[in-house]
Amino acid sequence: MKLFTSVHDVPNVDELVKEALSLKTDPYALQHIGKNKTLGLIFLNPSLRTRLSTQKAAMNLGMNVMVMNMDKEGWALETRDGVIMNGTTVEHIREAAAVIGEYCDIMGLRSFPTLKDREADYSEDIFNKFIKYSNIPVVSLESATRHPLQSFADLITIQEYKKTARPKVVLSWAPHIKPLPQSVPNSFAEWMCRAEAEGMIDFVITHPRGYELAEEFTPNATIIYDQDEALKDADFIYVKNWSSYQDYGKILPGGEGWMLDLERLKITNQAKVMHCLPVRRDLELSSEILDSAESLVIKEAGNRLWAAQTVLKNLLTSL
Amino acid sequence: MKLFTSVHDVPNVDELVKEALSLKTDPYALQHIGKNKTLGLIFLNPSLRTRLSTQKAAMNLGMNVMVMNMDKEGWALETRDGVIMNGTTVEHIREAAAVIGEYCDIMGLRSFPTLKDREADYSEDIFNKFIKYSNIPVVSLESATRHPLQSFADLITIQEYKKTARPKVVLSWAPHIKPLPQSVPNSFAEWMCRAEAEGMIDFVITHPRGYELAEEFTPNATIIYDQDEALKDADFIYVKNWSSYQDYGKILPGGEGWMLDLERLKITNQAKVMHCLPVRRDLELSSEILDSAESLVIKEAGNRLWAAQTVLKNLLTSL
Amino acid sequence: MKLFTSVHDVPNVDELVKEALSLKTDPYALQHIGKNKTLGLIFLNPSLRTRLSTQKAAMNLGMNVMVMNMDKEGWALETRDGVIMNGTTVEHIREAAAVIGEYCDIMGLRSFPTLKDREADYSEDIFNKFIKYSNIPVVSLESATRHPLQSFADLITIQEYKKTARPKVVLSWAPHIKPLPQSVPNSFAEWMCRAEAEGMIDFVITHPRGYELAEEFTPNATIIYDQDEALKDADFIYVKNWSSYQDYGKILPGGEGWMLDLERLKITNQAKVMHCLPVRRDLELSSEILDSAESLVIKEAGNRLWAAQTVLKNLLTSL
Repeated sequence: MKLFTSVHDVPNVDELVKEALSLKTDPYALQHIGKNKTLGLIFLNPSLRTRLSTQKAAMNLGMNVMVMNMDKEGWALETRDGVIMNGTTVEHIREAAAVIGEYCDIMGLRSFPTLKDREADYSEDIFNKFIKYSNIPVVSLESATRHPLQSFADLITIQEYKKTARPKVVLSWAPHIKPLPQSVPNSFAEWMCRAEAEGMIDFVITHPRGYELAEEFTPNATIIYDQDEALKDADFIYVKNWSSYQDYGKILPGGEGWMLDLERLKITNQAKVMHCLPVRRDLELSSEILDSAESLVIKEAGNRLWAAQTVLKNLLTSL
Repeated sequence: MKLFTSVHDVPNVDELVKEALSLKTDPYALQHIGKNKTLGLIFLNPSLRTRLSTQKAAMNLGMNVMVMNMDKEGWALETRDGVIMNGTTVEHIREAAAVIGEYCDIMGLRSFPTLKDREADYSEDIFNKFIKYSNIPVVSLESATRHPLQSFADLITIQEYKKTARPKVVLSWAPHIKPLPQSVPNSFAEWMCRAEAEGMIDFVITHPRGYELAEEFTPNATIIYDQDEALKDADFIYVKNWSSYQDYGKILPGGEGWMLDLERLKITNQAKVMHCLPVRRDLELSSEILDSAESLVIKEAGNRLWAAQTVLKNLLTSL
Repeated sequence: MKLFTSVHDVPNVDELVKEALSLKTDPYALQHIGKNKTLGLIFLNPSLRTRLSTQKAAMNLGMNVMVMNMDKEGWALETRDGVIMNGTTVEHIREAAAVIGEYCDIMGLRSFPTLKDREADYSEDIFNKFIKYSNIPVVSLESATRHPLQSFADLITIQEYKKTARPKVVLSWAPHIKPLPQSVPNSFAEWMCRAEAEGMIDFVITHPRGYELAEEFTPNATIIYDQDEALKDADFIYVKNWSSYQDYGKILPGGEGWMLDLERLKITNQAKVMHCLPVRRDLELSSEILDSAESLVIKEAGNRLWAAQTVLKNLLTSL
């Protein structure tokens, strides 16, 4: 593996999940492979789970880690080419990325979308430039359109907790008061469609009309607009808010009543409930579910560690 | 030791001080006990001494350390239960604490009081929730009401520099222009009352009327309102400002003239002067004392390292 | 080496460059010398290259590293003596430096000039106080008047890429929209004058009138005000903006047209182009040069690592 920015970098997700579960049983067995290798974690946006889990994963593999909050410790980067830099940006991404590449063996990068300009966000311009100019393997710590370490951890969690060979997994839209990126649901859909193609799960997406994800992330996915209908017989419900892709970055009317609670859970096959976190209690998801045995959210967050460690291991062995 | 949030977590302070002084003579002897163990240092407020000394202490024991300034790198946490999270808080302390518990073996936590709501501050709600939901051992890096690593370092310093078997230690209030928490004096009083009970010292508190600390922190303590009377025959003077507990968080009239200077030091038994730092020169304590051989403030700060290392060692061996 | 704040701390720059180039061929050979030694990196101003390269250099030598962004994680330091601290500063540099010295074996420090008060900036008061009160070896990560790790990396780069025994090196002023410190050109001039004295290079400075550097940094340097004349036969051009030293901190008229482009490069002896970064594209230096094979800026940034590692190695062996 030379890069980890989407499911397309993974030849076989079933194999990768098996590797993660194996590594989880013996976390420190591979400490020699990271010796004298340095991971640079570059954040253009805040992070809790991603930062701690990826830092810990790298240390488990014997790596050195350098964390750089560019948005706070550094300065504004210019991302456009061909502009005279006489404004507020201090350094061009071409130099910044290349310099980080000089000091690090692998880079982790987080860069959120603007939610203002769909074309710009979905071009993944900043991410692609970091990859191009750094000249080292890059791990996505969430980009404008994807969060693959999260989706990988989600699939690990589903494999751990499934009670049938091929569980039904439902991605269920949830309300929020702020417009959120589509990166987590895009990525989750992309991974689940792949898992479905590999025969691991059945996948259904449910959301109010107008919240359709970009088609490239939902190949052959079943979309059911009636939430109750979609949740029927579900084994796992993945709760997540996102803003509209069509009416880009907007919150649309019609999302009232979509919050999952214990009553609605009765429709399902005693489904386990997942969420990538952070979650707004009693807005996105009811406290009664979060505090119940049905919630997997903490186990899921815990699996971020093994997802990151498996990815770093594969990148290290390809250096 | 499963927790370190107050002197009540310590069976015997004399033993703990002896352990610290022993460890100081051979700092790297126990590097194997922290191998593959991770300390998460979570700061909800700024820190210099506490951060550096605790990070260094953990590294001396072979631990990995992850520092997270939640107030700057993260986002606002909701601490109340039963509220719909449709405001400015992004994540509930229940999830945030639990997630940190997934990645760390031990957590260090700093969370200051508001100084607005005494009941809320003194309930130690945030701290108790972090302890409850993280499900891992927690070390206080200063809470709303206590700073036990500081007090432990203070007692180590007193043991190192005492010239008599049972020195007289005076906690002496000092002026300040801002209302400061009671956490350092609360904790110091609590530790000194224990040290007195164990026969290590004699303890006296002096402050203007109205600055009485909460009684739970000063069991059987001698309070003398006349500063000169209190300082008589003192071997150690612990200088510290705090705001009123009774008229909560307020600066009261009557504190003028309480700053310690060399002239007033003559009353004492050639007392050594201590302060937890940061200190405002010539407001809380005179420069002439700080720059004299009577000042122990830097040695005291240095002992923060051994206090932290001793506590981490005890937590590690109880994992 | 007990200190690294300027070229004056270096007995022989040719030897130091040779040591760096040797160390570059075997970066991890000396990991034992940093074991259980701690480097504290204290930033009073932002940093990208300096932070990452110095942190990595220390880890290559087996050191522990603690990074502290005092400007963001900490609080305002008082630097003046004899003032009553009843204002906005929370801690005096005397205590802050001494405390850091208790926890660290070596300190790296960054502190920019104000560009308001020349006498204060050029007194290097903050730096000298950190050195005096910390009582440990200090490495400059850029001070008010110098950036010696940058200049050392520059000289390493010149040695690596020179095609003649004694190349001609030209420091060429460049335009900018903001007043920048003189620290990089001061330091570069100081190192190049020394390299010239040791027979390694020939050195010329070119800038508009009014941008003369302080004489102490340019002993025996050749200053040519006509840029084209200065660039003739140049083997290396070091492009850098700085504000006026005479009319302190000001941008003077007359800098138009000083930006280097490929056309002007024809005057030279196929010169390689250097810049310390960050660089404002098409304002300080043309994109066409930065993206061409003539640019050494990324290699130069890469050499920051070996400069830092060589300096730390020398400080460690003198502890």
